[in-house]
Amino acid sequence: MFWMRAPDEADLAVQRYDRANDPLRVLTLSDGVFAIILTLLVLEMHVPDLSQGQSLSTALQDVAPSFGAFLLSFVIVAIAWTGHRDLFVNVRRTDRTLVWLNMLYLLPVCILPFAAALLSRYQDEQVALEIYGVVLVAISVTRLTAWLYATNRPHLLHELIDAKSRRAGAAIVGVQALANAMAVGLAQFSTEAPMLIYAGTPIVYFIATALVRAGAPPSSAERNFT
Amino acid sequence: MFWMRAPDEADLAVQRYDRANDPLRVLTLSDGVFAIILTLLVLEMHVPDLSQGQSLSTALQDVAPSFGAFLLSFVIVAIAWTGHRDLFVNVRRTDRTLVWLNMLYLLPVCILPFAAALLSRYQDEQVALEIYGVVLVAISVTRLTAWLYATNRPHLLHELIDAKSRRAGAAIVGVQALANAMAVGLAQFSTEAPMLIYAGTPIVYFIATALVRAGAPPSSAERNFT
Amino acid sequence: MFWMRAPDEADLAVQRYDRANDPLRVLTLSDGVFAIILTLLVLEMHVPDLSQGQSLSTALQDVAPSFGAFLLSFVIVAIAWTGHRDLFVNVRRTDRTLVWLNMLYLLPVCILPFAAALLSRYQDEQVALEIYGVVLVAISVTRLTAWLYATNRPHLLHELIDAKSRRAGAAIVGVQALANAMAVGLAQFSTEAPMLIYAGTPIVYFIATALVRAGAPPSSAERNFT
Amino acid sequence: MFWMRAPDEADLAVQRYDRANDPLRVLTLSDGVFAIILTLLVLEMHVPDLSQGQSLSTALQDVAPSFGAFLLSFVIVAIAWTGHRDLFVNVRRTDRTLVWLNMLYLLPVCILPFAAALLSRYQDEQVALEIYGVVLVAISVTRLTAWLYATNRPHLLHELIDAKSRRAGAAIVGVQALANAMAVGLAQFSTEAPMLIYAGTPIVYFIATALVRAGAPPSSAERNFT
Repeated sequence: MFWMRAPDEADLAVQRYDRANDPLRVLTLSDGVFAIILTLLVLEMHVPDLSQGQSLSTALQDVAPSFGAFLLSFVIVAIAWTGHRDLFVNVRRTDRTLVWLNMLYLLPVCILPFAAALLSRYQDEQVALEIYGVVLVAISVTRLTAWLYATNRPHLLHELIDAKSRRAGAAIVGVQALANAMAVGLAQFSTEAPMLIYAGTPIVYFIATALVRAGAPPSSAERNFT
Repeated sequence: MFWMRAPDEADLAVQRYDRANDPLRVLTLSDGVFAIILTLLVLEMHVPDLSQGQSLSTALQDVAPSFGAFLLSFVIVAIAWTGHRDLFVNVRRTDRTLVWLNMLYLLPVCILPFAAALLSRYQDEQVALEIYGVVLVAISVTRLTAWLYATNRPHLLHELIDAKSRRAGAAIVGVQALANAMAVGLAQFSTEAPMLIYAGTPIVYFIATALVRAGAPPSSAERNFT
Repeated sequence: MFWMRAPDEADLAVQRYDRANDPLRVLTLSDGVFAIILTLLVLEMHVPDLSQGQSLSTALQDVAPSFGAFLLSFVIVAIAWTGHRDLFVNVRRTDRTLVWLNMLYLLPVCILPFAAALLSRYQDEQVALEIYGVVLVAISVTRLTAWLYATNRPHLLHELIDAKSRRAGAAIVGVQALANAMAVGLAQFSTEAPMLIYAGTPIVYFIATALVRAGAPPSSAERNFT
Repeated sequence: MFWMRAPDEADLAVQRYDRANDPLRVLTLSDGVFAIILTLLVLEMHVPDLSQGQSLSTALQDVAPSFGAFLLSFVIVAIAWTGHRDLFVNVRRTDRTLVWLNMLYLLPVCILPFAAALLSRYQDEQVALEIYGVVLVAISVTRLTAWLYATNRPHLLHELIDAKSRRAGAAIVGVQALANAMAVGLAQFSTEAPMLIYAGTPIVYFIATALVRAGAPPSSAERNFT
């Protein structure tokens, strides 16, 4: 019923290679992970129990730090997703290393809900601030690694990526990583300073991306950063 | 092994632009978020513990408000999804703003399970009613913003959207927003009135959409509202 | 930069209709819901706490009913998904009614984890058995409704579906619905009988599908039932 | 409005067969399940409560085994996903058996979070080690079954798979299954030995896959193992 021609060796190798390295399933899996993390974060906000004589309004004020941690983490995951998309719009084929670098990128994203829950419960504790920061640094570093790996391999790309776009893409993530690493170091001296940096880096990232786009030539990859 | 022709600048810019702004991943992420929220809502219904001498049937009657909140929230998320689909069937390309407006739309959708859990536990509390309503208003307002933004930008669309369809799309969401905002204001005077409005707006939306479709010319976007 | 030709009215209407009624997003959303339900079910199996002097092996025996409820519910959701796929492989376009019938089908699927948790905790209680059965009946009835609606509307289908396939598709679901409705009725007399029926219907369904396929002509829709 | 030509019987049968057996939805469902399991695993790491006078750093040390179980399970699910992808890049059509073998493969993957939670809480208990190992064996055996089934059926494949690739694909999974089965047997004598084997098999798998790729001819399927 089904007839299969015997293709020549070279044909077969290219077809297999293209099919085996189609990025589609990597994207479906990654989008699934990002979608779930975005929605799991809210599960760390608990409906309060009322102690005797306490009003619900008062009890909800204790939920406020959870809400802050939720909002911040939501924005961080949203940025992690746009960064993932900004990389993979350029990717025509994956290879084994890129598949595993992508997994390595998803790992700290998956740990973020735990770090966010820890931070929302113990927002004055040095170790909670440090763990949250280490997860943020890990998200940036693994994203940077995947970016540098893929953008330097023409056979994985739709088109060559110019050196300036490559550097710009690395810079906006690298700065984030450095700022958050610094915040981790500051956690032993202060609880406010790290929080300000964690909350500030998304804003800086947002502005930096806008500046990079504004200064980019129309045909460059960086022109399309989200 | 892989040969890349050097495309001219203009080619490259258009190809990059199209690829970088393909709505596909925005849809995969959004569908993932909607699917998870639809299923997370049921997690707020807890299997009851039996106090001494209590029958399971009696204990389950205490779950009834949770079930009501679940059903209502399920319908609200379902409408939020059909609204998202009704917008994006018209969208050929996203741009940076639309990607972020979409994230802004997903944010209150992600908060809904918390608001639903709060309401199902404290259905007589003013502040629980207010928070639920504020989340509903936020869902409508962010949806309205994305609709008005995208439908006015021909380069993002498959075809131009006529002014009447645009207004109709805005009206059916705007009315919802207004009704729910009013319900929030009423929460200080009554607990029944806001609940009636929250439960009534989906029905009104459903009928309004049917009327808009029935009165629309065949080639208009509004003809296909879900 | 982007040029849009003004298509004539009829062109526009058909293009819009096709795009607005593409089943793709309905499938993405539904697959997401099914995937989440399949994985959520396991969350109802709790790692046991050990009471004094109790061994873990003994404590795990109390988890056995949860495991049974998990396995049964997993199979039921798997069948619900294959049934969904068996319908939508024939569907070329959705319409408003089908989108909402699909939502109605997802609703009892989303409630199943609650019913399974209730059953695994109170497996001897009539009301728990009844609720589980009612959810199963709802899954079958909403599936049947979507099947009968879509298979009768040629403009929604890739090809016409012959009357025999249509009846066969309805019969294998209808029998399930009847058996489970009967089990609900039996719950007041016995706890074993309904459980046997709930566990038996997937097996009957499996065999019935195999028989339907075996007896079907090659070009019929029923030939491809999963 | 919609015109349907009456295709001849043979046409219809092939079209229906191809459409009904398109692997796309199987992949969407499976990717969804894998994505959810990857993210659910972290839910087993609980933010610790502090007992009197205890510092958060000390309390977090009790979370360390959970973190180990999380990391190990994350890698195991990642490998299960790459194995799934390595099979399905070769699959052009599914059939009824393959759909159900795929479900059978997803089943132990869905149980893994429970086994991981059990292990992270009772890491010194024989029965917890055994259950975790049995789930790992089940993941390997069901994967092996699907691999052997599909790679032997040309009408399901894009191209024929040579016998050597088929054996290599079976061997790297079979070795895992055997090692983990042995670990289950060792659990009655030792708690360290099984843990070392569970943690070691992903590393062995990783190296074995690299060796298989390195020794494979360019046109073979095994060349593209992830």
